[in-house]
Amino acid sequence: MTTRLLDACLGKPVDATPIWLMRQAGRYLPEYRAIRERLSFIEMCRRPEVAAEITLQPLARFELDAAIIFADILLPLEGMGIGFHFAEDAGPVIEHPVRAAADLDSLRAGDPQTDVPFVLDALRLVSRELGGKVPLIGFAGAPFTLASYVIEGGHSRHYAEVKKLMYGAPATFERLMDLLTATVIAFLLAQLAAGAQVVQLFDSWVGALGPYDYERFAAPWSRKVLDAVGGHGAPVIHFANGASAMLPQVRAAGGDVIGVDWRIDLDRARDELGEGVAVQGNLDPVALLGPIAQVEARAADVLGRAHGRPGHIFNLGHGLLPQTPPDTVARLVAFVHDWQGER
Amino acid sequence: MTTRLLDACLGKPVDATPIWLMRQAGRYLPEYRAIRERLSFIEMCRRPEVAAEITLQPLARFELDAAIIFADILLPLEGMGIGFHFAEDAGPVIEHPVRAAADLDSLRAGDPQTDVPFVLDALRLVSRELGGKVPLIGFAGAPFTLASYVIEGGHSRHYAEVKKLMYGAPATFERLMDLLTATVIAFLLAQLAAGAQVVQLFDSWVGALGPYDYERFAAPWSRKVLDAVGGHGAPVIHFANGASAMLPQVRAAGGDVIGVDWRIDLDRARDELGEGVAVQGNLDPVALLGPIAQVEARAADVLGRAHGRPGHIFNLGHGLLPQTPPDTVARLVAFVHDWQGER
Repeated sequence: MTTRLLDACLGKPVDATPIWLMRQAGRYLPEYRAIRERLSFIEMCRRPEVAAEITLQPLARFELDAAIIFADILLPLEGMGIGFHFAEDAGPVIEHPVRAAADLDSLRAGDPQTDVPFVLDALRLVSRELGGKVPLIGFAGAPFTLASYVIEGGHSRHYAEVKKLMYGAPATFERLMDLLTATVIAFLLAQLAAGAQVVQLFDSWVGALGPYDYERFAAPWSRKVLDAVGGHGAPVIHFANGASAMLPQVRAAGGDVIGVDWRIDLDRARDELGEGVAVQGNLDPVALLGPIAQVEARAADVLGRAHGRPGHIFNLGHGLLPQTPPDTVARLVAFVHDWQGER
Repeated sequence: MTTRLLDACLGKPVDATPIWLMRQAGRYLPEYRAIRERLSFIEMCRRPEVAAEITLQPLARFELDAAIIFADILLPLEGMGIGFHFAEDAGPVIEHPVRAAADLDSLRAGDPQTDVPFVLDALRLVSRELGGKVPLIGFAGAPFTLASYVIEGGHSRHYAEVKKLMYGAPATFERLMDLLTATVIAFLLAQLAAGAQVVQLFDSWVGALGPYDYERFAAPWSRKVLDAVGGHGAPVIHFANGASAMLPQVRAAGGDVIGVDWRIDLDRARDELGEGVAVQGNLDPVALLGPIAQVEARAADVLGRAHGRPGHIFNLGHGLLPQTPPDTVARLVAFVHDWQGER
C-alpha cells in the first residue's frame, strides 16, 4: 500500500515523488486498443466491468501511484437532457447546442444514481480490485469546460458561441452553469461514496478565458464545486489547462492540489500559487514522443523545479497522446521514482 | 500626422493611447469581402494595388493610429522552395512538409526582392498614400511559428510533428530554423527599406512550447531576428501568442514592444516584463462579438491596468474575427482615444 499520492496531496513528505498520468488508461496501450476494436468508446464507458478493466490496465504495466477511473467528462450530460455522441476523429458532438434561454427549458440537474450508475459501479469494482494498494481517482469536468461543449457543440477554436452567450445573455449562461454545477457536485460526491479516494476537477478549456472573464464566468462555479466536494476526507485536485498566467485566481477558486499545464516553469508556478497548496504537473505530453534521454532531461527539470518542497505530484501538463510509446511511460515512471533530489 | 504609435513604442508620453488591431484589414469589412469575391486570398496578396487598397480600407473607416500591410506570414516560404496553398476553410496547406534532413536539400534562404516583390511594392504604394499621416507596420512570422507550419503542414492541435523533429533530430530542426531566420531577417529589412516605419514579429504558435523548449528551440532564432532588425530607427514589436506565463523569456528575446495575448492581466504582464519596454494588447478579440457596453467595460479594464505608465499600445490579444461588427470596432477606437485616465 502506497500513500505517496495522498501524502503529497496534503503536503506531507514522501519516500518518492508520486506519479500518475492524465489519460494513463487509453489508446497508447495495445490492450486498450484490443477492447476498442470490438466496442465503441461510449460502450466501453457504459460497461462497468470493461471500464474497470481499462482503468487497471496501466497499473498492471507501470508502478503508478494512482488509478483514475476510465470515463469521460461528458457522461453526466445525457441525464441532464443534453444528447451527444462521439464522431470518429471529430470528437464529441452535442446534438442540440444551447444558444438561447429556450434551449434550457428541457434541461434538468443530473442525478448520478440514475444517469451514470455504470461509472459508480466501475468505481466499486476497481476499488475492490485495488484493495487500497494505490488510491483511486474520480473526476468530473468543471462547469465552464462542460458549458463550452454544451454551447459550442463540440471542440472549438475561438469559443465564440460560449463567449457570445456569456456577454450577450449572461442570465442564460448562468442558469446553464448552475445546472452543470449541481450535476457535477452530485456526481463527484457519488464517486467519493462509491470508492474514489481523490477527485480531480478538469477545467480543460478554461484557457480560452482571460482573468477578467475567468473571475466573472468560470471561477464562481468552480468554487461552488470545490467547496462542496472538499472537506470529505478526500483530497481535491483542481486542474486548469491554459490558465498558467492566472494561477492565483485558479488557486483562489479552491482545491488541495492545483494541476498545472506545461506552459510555465514549475518553480514559478509554485511561487505564484503560494504556500499551503500542493501542485501537480507538468511535463509536456508531446515530450514523450521524443528520445528517452530527452524525456529524462525534461522530467529532471520538472523534478528539480519542485525541489526542496513537498507537495508535488508528478504528472503531464495535459493528457497522454495516443502515439506515445508505452516503453517511454515505463521509463518515465521509473525515472521519477528513482530521482535522488530532495522532496 | 500622429506620432502616437511611434512615441508609445519608445515609452514617451502621448495625448491619447494609440490603437491598431491585428487583422484590422480583413474579412469583417464588407469592402474587403467585395474584393475577396472576385480574387483568391493569394491573388489579393500578390497584386500590390489590391493589397494597398485593402491595407487602407480600415483607415478610411476608423481613426486607427497605424496601418499594417495586408500580407500573410507564409508568403516568403514559396521562394524558399516550400510550396503551399490556402484550402477553403482548412487554412494553409504546405505541399511537402519537412520531416527529415533530406526534405531540406531543395530549400534555400529566401530573397525578398525576387520572392515577394509584390509585398514591397504594396508597402511603397501605401507609404506614398499615407504620406506619414500614421505609421505603416510591416511584419513577418517568427522562425518557430513558420517552422511549425512547414513541419506540421498546416494548423495543428498538438504540434506533435514539430516537437518530434525538435527532440529527435535537433540538427535538422536547427538547419530549418536557420534558413527561416535568414529569410525573415532579409524580408523585414526589405520592408523597412520599402517604407515600413515599424515592424512586428508574429510568434503566433509559440504557445505550444513551455519555457524549457522555448529557451532551446525558439528564443535563440527570434533573438537573431530581433537583433538584426532592431537599431534601424524603426520600433520592433514582438508578439508571442500563448506565452503569457513566460513573458520574462519573451522579453529577453528582444523587441522594443512586447505584444501580449488576453490570458493575463495587463498590469501583471507589465510587472513581469519590467521597465524599459513598451507593451501592446490585450483585449480578447472575441469580446468584440458582445454588446458594446461589455466591450467598453473590458477596454476600460485594459486601459486601467496600463494606467500611470506610458508605453502602452492598445490592441487585441489576437486577430479580429471575421464575424466582428465594424460598428463595434468604431466604438472601440473612439472609446480608447477618449479615455480619460492617465497615460
